[in-house]
Amino acid sequence: ENAFILTIACTDACGLVGAFSSLIASMGGNITEANHHTDIKTGKAFLRFVFTNKTGSADDLRAAIQPLTEKYAADCSVYDANKPMKVVIAVSRFGHCLQELIHRQLAGILPIEICAVLSNHEDMRGFVEWAGIPYHYLPVSKENKAEQEQQIRSLFQSHDAELLILARYMQILSADMCRDFDGKAINIHHSFLPSFKGAKPYSQAHDKGVKIIGATAHYVTTDLDEGPIIEQAVERVDHSVSVEEFVNVGRDTETLALTRAVRWHAERRVMMHGNRTIVFK
Amino acid sequence: ENAFILTIACTDACGLVGAFSSLIASMGGNITEANHHTDIKTGKAFLRFVFTNKTGSADDLRAAIQPLTEKYAADCSVYDANKPMKVVIAVSRFGHCLQELIHRQLAGILPIEICAVLSNHEDMRGFVEWAGIPYHYLPVSKENKAEQEQQIRSLFQSHDAELLILARYMQILSADMCRDFDGKAINIHHSFLPSFKGAKPYSQAHDKGVKIIGATAHYVTTDLDEGPIIEQAVERVDHSVSVEEFVNVGRDTETLALTRAVRWHAERRVMMHGNRTIVFK
Amino acid sequence: ENAFILTIACTDACGLVGAFSSLIASMGGNITEANHHTDIKTGKAFLRFVFTNKTGSADDLRAAIQPLTEKYAADCSVYDANKPMKVVIAVSRFGHCLQELIHRQLAGILPIEICAVLSNHEDMRGFVEWAGIPYHYLPVSKENKAEQEQQIRSLFQSHDAELLILARYMQILSADMCRDFDGKAINIHHSFLPSFKGAKPYSQAHDKGVKIIGATAHYVTTDLDEGPIIEQAVERVDHSVSVEEFVNVGRDTETLALTRAVRWHAERRVMMHGNRTIVFK
Amino acid sequence: ENAFILTIACTDACGLVGAFSSLIASMGGNITEANHHTDIKTGKAFLRFVFTNKTGSADDLRAAIQPLTEKYAADCSVYDANKPMKVVIAVSRFGHCLQELIHRQLAGILPIEICAVLSNHEDMRGFVEWAGIPYHYLPVSKENKAEQEQQIRSLFQSHDAELLILARYMQILSADMCRDFDGKAINIHHSFLPSFKGAKPYSQAHDKGVKIIGATAHYVTTDLDEGPIIEQAVERVDHSVSVEEFVNVGRDTETLALTRAVRWHAERRVMMHGNRTIVFK
Repeated sequence: ENAFILTIACTDACGLVGAFSSLIASMGGNITEANHHTDIKTGKAFLRFVFTNKTGSADDLRAAIQPLTEKYAADCSVYDANKPMKVVIAVSRFGHCLQELIHRQLAGILPIEICAVLSNHEDMRGFVEWAGIPYHYLPVSKENKAEQEQQIRSLFQSHDAELLILARYMQILSADMCRDFDGKAINIHHSFLPSFKGAKPYSQAHDKGVKIIGATAHYVTTDLDEGPIIEQAVERVDHSVSVEEFVNVGRDTETLALTRAVRWHAERRVMMHGNRTIVFK
Repeated sequence: ENAFILTIACTDACGLVGAFSSLIASMGGNITEANHHTDIKTGKAFLRFVFTNKTGSADDLRAAIQPLTEKYAADCSVYDANKPMKVVIAVSRFGHCLQELIHRQLAGILPIEICAVLSNHEDMRGFVEWAGIPYHYLPVSKENKAEQEQQIRSLFQSHDAELLILARYMQILSADMCRDFDGKAINIHHSFLPSFKGAKPYSQAHDKGVKIIGATAHYVTTDLDEGPIIEQAVERVDHSVSVEEFVNVGRDTETLALTRAVRWHAERRVMMHGNRTIVFK
Repeated sequence: ENAFILTIACTDACGLVGAFSSLIASMGGNITEANHHTDIKTGKAFLRFVFTNKTGSADDLRAAIQPLTEKYAADCSVYDANKPMKVVIAVSRFGHCLQELIHRQLAGILPIEICAVLSNHEDMRGFVEWAGIPYHYLPVSKENKAEQEQQIRSLFQSHDAELLILARYMQILSADMCRDFDGKAINIHHSFLPSFKGAKPYSQAHDKGVKIIGATAHYVTTDLDEGPIIEQAVERVDHSVSVEEFVNVGRDTETLALTRAVRWHAERRVMMHGNRTIVFK
Repeated sequence: ENAFILTIACTDACGLVGAFSSLIASMGGNITEANHHTDIKTGKAFLRFVFTNKTGSADDLRAAIQPLTEKYAADCSVYDANKPMKVVIAVSRFGHCLQELIHRQLAGILPIEICAVLSNHEDMRGFVEWAGIPYHYLPVSKENKAEQEQQIRSLFQSHDAELLILARYMQILSADMCRDFDGKAINIHHSFLPSFKGAKPYSQAHDKGVKIIGATAHYVTTDLDEGPIIEQAVERVDHSVSVEEFVNVGRDTETLALTRAVRWHAERRVMMHGNRTIVFK
């Protein structure tokens, strides 16, 4: 059965929810999920509808909503709900996030299609190729950074990918790269942001003596570890947990936060609003 | 500013969300919150709208939605969002749930008005009366149970109350009482239901050696500790925690689960569907 | 039955645990709880024993451990496990932490004796006096700050108190005060430190769009919101939760973190080690 | 450096902790971790020491503690802390627990050596063999059950394994098998036990409308899903989560609970006491 996702962002107005939901109904669509959020401060409305529709195509729908899009000066998108999102994953030497994403795709429980994995190390090649996914070794140094990033761009475009996942990729993207991938790159940072930005967050957290550690999945922006947060996860630690063990405890929170963020993004549940995100769960 | 809550339960149909949201718009209402859930198995739809409306009254709204109510054979209710819900609280000797409910009302952060507290013990009188709330000592025995329950009914009706909160009230209500208060009585059970129904749940949990204990806020039904669950909360324990300490650890989960359940019920966020609840958060 | 708590901090040495536990046994003490932690980096050991002892007094024990104290250059303390800790609480206008501490003392489940409550506001007088605890209104301004803090010191000393609890006391203590109360004052900060230090942490957290908020109970030091962390608690939020509601959600985490920190401190479970704490649970 | 773990279970007695810790010291051992628990009801004491020792062997230690073992009628065990535990894993078609255990062993963060994986299905062969671990396809039917279990026993013995992990192995072991593997088999049950024992726990939980689901890692006994609990993990769900999605949400809790239980067991942190477990974290 055909199923579509429609997302809408515009200035809030009386009749907005009714207008769009009536239009869907008028086209024979049956709404199975409806979300709505109005930001009180900015007066901006965010809507998301999931609906089944026996006859129309995504393009038919786009044409049909055009008048409403104009009337409300809305930012509207229509997606095929049955089509997995094409993604490229970047990884360095820690494989747990990558492994979980691949296992979930293989198990058929994450609506993504991993087109390629790239890495500045060779460590993960074996597992990735076992899974039947192309592995691209793209070493990076001060000298070749611009060139290496150009390879990433090409790889992304050649697969017509929609999302770049930094799954413990331990390289800082250039400002240009960040801008090009605005809203299209998700990073997992191994701390409870905004605490412990930058390098060695577990070491920072251990020195500080925190009792709970966390991980943060966020969109990549030019401000390091400052992009809009999609999901966070936490775990308890105590004085007896060494900094080396922090890293192991942290694995779980990183994997949880990143796989959730990727799923929500792939299901078009995440909408950006300045530096914040709306996540319709 | 006038604000209303509209809840709708009916068989799902194409155009449902649009029909109701357009109607609200046509009356000048501005939707600030919209929730929608369709149960796939039963084909039943649940909707909740919160909207502001400068001119109309609740009765105007009720009249206006009448045609749609009939069209969809829907169960619709309109509530004044600014009016706190009148409640009666029953308690025995453990006061923590009662205390938190009273402190929250006094702090203005829980939309309830506690009209009266009743108890089969005198322990909580001092605090309740300090808060300016009438305290009714209604001792209960095998002999006077029917009569005592009649007193509870009268108390409830005399205040025009909408909700009876069993805040660690250690008496089992009669089947008649349960039926009379169907959907109008919330109990906090000190276990993670359906584990450890009945008496001494912490003792049962300790014997069983569980690693996590919980509390469950649920609607009261004639099946003891089996009514529709509204909220659950959990906390970790380990081998070193004695059964006496389980009781203290449990305080926190009981208070959290019950205050949330009461808030959601008072904000008309909870809808019953057979033995399950929809909770629009 | 007599029960004692012995805490020991010293450079780790072979035979340390055996020496102290054998000494306790030689005096007829029966150990019911034993904790041990060695910090690998600094080589410092921390021990805590709880034991019953039919005949001796705390002073007998202090005398008996004197040779071991000297041998290991250890920092040892002996406490009567049955004696509640005397505390003074400071509060401003938010009463939830104070209320919970008082209700727990009254319920007999927190080993503290609240000797006095002080505040720069009158809001909490009614409840505190209902509980039979003296309430001291100590208004503070730029001009009288030194004098007001002197009143706090006097109050603390006159009661022979061991702990000052800042239960949402919205005043920054002077550096002198912080030094005088080193290790003897616990503050609850309404953020997941080290994120959002200083003023309006919930507002900072909301602007940042975090998905989890927290509270931190820590010892007071001259560095604002930087003292050794004793306990942290967290709660989920999402885009739909307003900054005003952050404050209400945060109540629960603040109360949980502070009451736990106070209990552990009162049970002599917390030992400081530089800017970190050992908490023997 | 040599490192050993000593575990002791016996009737509590004055001087117990001192006797064992002094003995360790007398042999030149340096204690890095010491745990102690006395069960008040039964008067039974449980101790665990981790210590480094430059010269002695495990056998030297066993000989040295012999007099104390006899004196206290204690159940003592000495383990080499640097030697990973040999395990065999049984799996059916859900691979997430197995995958995580293998990835952790490969990453060097779980002190186990997976000698073999057995399954009544072929699904996981590819991944297991990629990891270089032998895969044994042991189909099971009513007719061959006794024989198949004999194959499992042989496999276990041939590898000199110490632990059988049922990582979503969807077969009920015979009573004989359960007895033979008493204390040597850990199962992950996909519910928050004791709720929802037996078949299709997620379906049971969904019907019941619980707001939190869980997973339980426990030792296998002849009572189905009733053995001593080692660890439990939970996750929130709400009305919008379908029973199919319960399965996906549950993956994470199952993996977390099982990997923790296996690690603690492999580090000799778990001691059984009737139907309960002591877990020294």
